Formats: sequence, C-alpha cells, structure tokens
Amino acid sequence: METEIPSFEGPSCPIPLPHRERILMGHGSGGKMSHDLIMQVFNPPFSNSALDQGDDAGVVSVLPGNSMASTWNGRLAISTDSHVVWPLFFAGGDIGKLAVCGTVNDVAMMGAEPLYLSAGFILEEGLDIVTLHKVVTSMQAAAREAGVTIVAGDTKVVQKGKADSLYINTTGVGILPEGVEISGKNAQVGDVVILSGPIGAHGMAVLEARQELGFESQIQSDVAPLNHLVHAMLNESQRIHVLRDPTRGGLATTLNEIAKQSQVSILIDEITIPVEPAVAMACEMLGFDPLYVANEGKLVAIVEKTDSLAVLEAMRRSKYGTGAVIIGEIQSEPRGRVLMRTSFGSTRVMDMPSGELLPRIC
Amino acid sequence: METEIPSFEGPSCPIPLPHRERILMGHGSGGKMSHDLIMQVFNPPFSNSALDQGDDAGVVSVLPGNSMASTWNGRLAISTDSHVVWPLFFAGGDIGKLAVCGTVNDVAMMGAEPLYLSAGFILEEGLDIVTLHKVVTSMQAAAREAGVTIVAGDTKVVQKGKADSLYINTTGVGILPEGVEISGKNAQVGDVVILSGPIGAHGMAVLEARQELGFESQIQSDVAPLNHLVHAMLNESQRIHVLRDPTRGGLATTLNEIAKQSQVSILIDEITIPVEPAVAMACEMLGFDPLYVANEGKLVAIVEKTDSLAVLEAMRRSKYGTGAVIIGEIQSEPRGRVLMRTSFGSTRVMDMPSGELLPRIC
Repeated sequence: METEIPSFEGPSCPIPLPHRERILMGHGSGGKMSHDLIMQVFNPPFSNSALDQGDDAGVVSVLPGNSMASTWNGRLAISTDSHVVWPLFFAGGDIGKLAVCGTVNDVAMMGAEPLYLSAGFILEEGLDIVTLHKVVTSMQAAAREAGVTIVAGDTKVVQKGKADSLYINTTGVGILPEGVEISGKNAQVGDVVILSGPIGAHGMAVLEARQELGFESQIQSDVAPLNHLVHAMLNESQRIHVLRDPTRGGLATTLNEIAKQSQVSILIDEITIPVEPAVAMACEMLGFDPLYVANEGKLVAIVEKTDSLAVLEAMRRSKYGTGAVIIGEIQSEPRGRVLMRTSFGSTRVMDMPSGELLPRIC
Repeated sequence: METEIPSFEGPSCPIPLPHRERILMGHGSGGKMSHDLIMQVFNPPFSNSALDQGDDAGVVSVLPGNSMASTWNGRLAISTDSHVVWPLFFAGGDIGKLAVCGTVNDVAMMGAEPLYLSAGFILEEGLDIVTLHKVVTSMQAAAREAGVTIVAGDTKVVQKGKADSLYINTTGVGILPEGVEISGKNAQVGDVVILSGPIGAHGMAVLEARQELGFESQIQSDVAPLNHLVHAMLNESQRIHVLRDPTRGGLATTLNEIAKQSQVSILIDEITIPVEPAVAMACEMLGFDPLYVANEGKLVAIVEKTDSLAVLEAMRRSKYGTGAVIIGEIQSEPRGRVLMRTSFGSTRVMDMPSGELLPRIC
C-alpha cells in the first residue's frame, strides 16, 4: 500500500527543471539560491505590497481604511503556532492550510480580527520542491478565505534527518475591537456552553492518512478558518465570555483549561455532543475517545444565558457553524473540574489527559 | 575532546526531579504534561500580563503610554525568523539569545521600535530539560536588554531524529514612527555606507563551537540587540535611507541585496572594513572570506552624505556601534552590483554567494 498524496488543485509549479527537484542546503544560505527559492516558490502566491518590498520586516497598517479605526483603542492580539503535522497531506487539508487556519483561529478566539500572518519554514534537505509549492499555494488559498495577508517570511534548511520534510511556524496579528473582553478566565456561573459542530474529525483524518485506521473511511479533516464565524457571533452578542478552539487534546482538554482558568465547573451532557458516524466508528475501533481527539475547525463558546439562543442561531447561519449545539453549562462546584452527564444518567469527571494520545497531529 | 556547554549564569532549573530530565512526546500533547512544562519552564522567566493570561493569543497595546501615541499613523513592522543554529551554545551566545536578537534586529532595520515577540519551540524528544531552561532564560535576558516582551508562545515535540535538539521561531512586532521610511529600495547615488563594527565574528564563533577551527581562538559571537543603536541613529538624522543587518551570507550578500533593490551600485573600500585579528586569522586558515561570514550584532546604514558624520558619531556613542566606520558610497553604475576597491588599488565585483558556506549558522 503506497502513501498517496491527494491530487492538488492549483497552478502548476513554476520552477524550471532541473532546479525544481529537491531542496539543497544552499537554499538556506541567504544567497542566490535562497533568493531564487523565495522569488519562485514563495512570492508568487503570497505576493502583496508588504512582502514584495523584500525588506527585513513587512510594514503594514492597522489603522486607516479599517472600519474600527475611529474607536480602536490600540489593542492587538498576537498568537504563534509551529506546525509539525505528519503526514503533510491528509483528507480535507495539509500542513499549509493547517498552519494558516490554526493561527487565524487562535487570534479569532480572543475576539480579534486577524489581519496579518508571518510564515517561517524549516525545510529538510532533500524535500521535493513541488511538495513545497503545493503547501505554499494551499497556505495562500486559506489566507485568502480568512482574509489575512502573509506579510513576513523566513526559510531555513537543515540537513537530511534533522527535520521531517518541513515544519511551518505562523504568527498572527489581529486588532481587538473596543469593548471585546474574551478570555478563558471569563466563564461565569450560569453561562451556556456552545460547540460549533461535530468533533474528532481532524485527528481521525490524520490517522487515516497515516494508514493507522486499518480501513478506508470518508473522514475529512475539519480544518477551517473560524474568524468569519466569530465575527458573526460578536455581531450578535456582547455577552460572549470565552471562545476557544479545541485542537490538541480535544474538547475535553479545552474545557478543562477553561474550568481551571475561570475557577468554575463545567457540566456537559454527553448525549448532546455531536460526532460524525464515521469518526465515532473509527474512534471506537481504535480505542480513542472523540472528546480527546483534535479538531481544527471547531470552537467552544461560553455565553451568557440570555444571549445563548441568538448566538446559536447566528452560528448556524455561518458556514463553519451550521452544526452548532448547546452542550452544557457553567456551575460553581467543583471548581476547576469538568463533569459529564453520561447517556446512562450518571456523572463522571472528564480529566485533562496526562500523556500523548496522537503525536504530531498539528 | 568533549563539547563543552558554556557555564550558565541564571536561576537554577526549577523543575523537580525526576520530571526535569528529558523532553517526552507527552510534553507536546496539549494536556497536563504540556501545561506543566509551560508553567515550570517557560512562564517563570517570560512572565508578563499578556502571556500569564494563558489564552490562545497575547493581547497587547500599541497605543497608550507610548511616546509616539499622538503622532503614530498605525504602521507596524512584522518580522519572523526560525532559528536552527548548531550547536545550541557558542562563545558569546546561544540559540535563545540569537532568536530574540535576530528578530528584534529585523524589526529595528525598518526603523521601527520592536515591542512584542512571539516564541514557537520545536523540541526533539529526549532533549535535556535543563538545556531548554538555559535557552529560555537566555531569551528572557536578551528580551530584557532589548526592551521587548514575549507575549505569545507555542511548544511542539517531534520524535527523536525529527529535529536537532530544538528549533525556535520568533516573530516580532514593532511600531513604525511617522515619517520613518527606511527600505533596501531607498539607497541613493551619493549616499554614504556605514558599517557598525568588525565583521565575521558570529560565523567564526559558531565554527569554533563546532570544533572546526582546529585551534582555540578567543572569538566571541557579536550577537546583540541593535534596536537601541537604531533609535540613537534615528534621533540624529531623518536622512537614513537603508538599514540592514548582514546576517546569513555576510556583508557581501547584504550589500548585493541593497544594490539590487535600489538599482544602484555600491562601491566599498576593502581597507576600511574592520575585521578582528582573531577572526581574520581563523578565516584565512579555513579559507573563508569574512565579507561572506554571518554577523548577528552588526548593521549597515546607507545615509545621505550631509548627515553621515553626525550619524557615525551617534553610532560610536552607542554600546553596539563603538566600532562604526564609513566603508563606501553609492554610485549609479553598474546598477545592481557591488564593487570593492582592493588594498592593491584594483576594483573587483563582490558577488552574491550562490551556494551554502556555513549551514545552520543562525
């Protein structure tokens, strides 16, 4: 059985043979080979006025032309993520799409409007340049959908055996509108917990790409930029207290983080948590609990009860929130813990995982 | 001969044994082990109000309390660099200091005031946690000297053999004062080229740490944050057209980039370019040209002739500019080329290097 790279929709690789074949150490030299790689692989898809200057930093503006300019009080949200997912390509996405969406989402989870990204690549000597081109083009497509611009970049090359094809760091900068105060610390007793859709698809899609499922499923990663969904939610309510995307460690880990940060208890109804049948089946066969499996296009919102139905409706009208459901509520005790009412009617503690379930899932 | 890790000045590692010994895959899980690593290794040195929130992004302000607030027109400079230097420790610095200074300097080279950094770590399974702690503490010391705050972080762990101890991405955000227009495109015929001090030390210090010199030298890397130097220069003159730090590929590569971006010719006098005797000797013995060797604490400034002496004096009064000298001037022809008047009186073209001289120097 061969590992198949999903077919790639996009412009063909513009690099003339024979230089297109493999990454060499010289591509990391800072000299002519680096320059050519940047000009041929990175700049054509990413092209924008800040990046095209070719200076040491991208110069951008956060004030003029932005609708919030008159009320903006100078706050930025800054987030960073290094992406080491293996394999690079999986059903529904690839490391490039993941690198853009992951950071866009982290900025959006503060209620901020992501505007700019940087992208830092660590390339392994010997990497196929066509593969790199596919990843870069996928990043640009994701950036376009999210409405963010990649304004700074960097490329390093390490010897064969000192990385695993390629790693991508993205760092995002967004502006935070006046009055928005969203944090994992802000969950309050009585608040409602909303989940934007079915969980566990990303982790299982990556496992399938590793051929660890042992059978063929139709599972697609949910990787998606959530900033437009967040925008729609914030337009609907000013009483959204917490937003977070349940990535590594899954929904259970995210809820535990929030319970600890806010010093509250989160009570979840197991029966309300959506899991696609294919994901549920794959999890059951492999012994995974979908509550602990990574998502890359879902969010948890903790919202004041009065606004919860309006927020839910707004989410369902947005592309990546059509499957939104209420899954629980905030209680006072036991502080810092997540409880789950099971389908059998009992209640159990949903702990934070201690070790590693799925390495290199993002 | 054993590789010796330079003695480390700083607080001792706070992690209780036996957990302190090695990075495990579980430290990248996003669960409890990740949480403990962050709380014990990263947060104590980096602690600040944005990072301590523990949210998906650090929230910071670029307006209030800043002296430029009233005139700032909303421009930011954003720069990113992944650092893969090997070995991690070398005379004069380490990967942590390098990661902070490298990005601070790239932001400063736009004439911007660096304020915030993100830090993304890729850790190899099996990494000694005491080593990580040394690197993180060194980052914080460098950040303190530069006056920047690390407001967002991320940690990923990859299997043994999929990285080389650790890699660090830093991304920097700085505000660009009104009226500052510095770019590699802005060199003008008649401008003067100033170099902030002797070249080649960083590259040779790293080679010594690799024990490739074959003898013991006293060479120390020049790695340093240059933002205060740039600040002093901009206070002196509004006629600084280009600033750039000659890192990978050295002074020759940087001058070539500027010549191409500005479509001018740069004429350099070989005899004016300072090289420390130990660096010159090491380069000669190993067959390196110091013009092509990496620096991490030097800058090139291209300044209007009328202001060049005032800028030079301001540089010499600043800690990292005491060795500043005028090394050349901008001419019109041949466009895009760098020429060097040698000590023998002849003139030769100083090309951009095509391949890789010193892999993983930064």
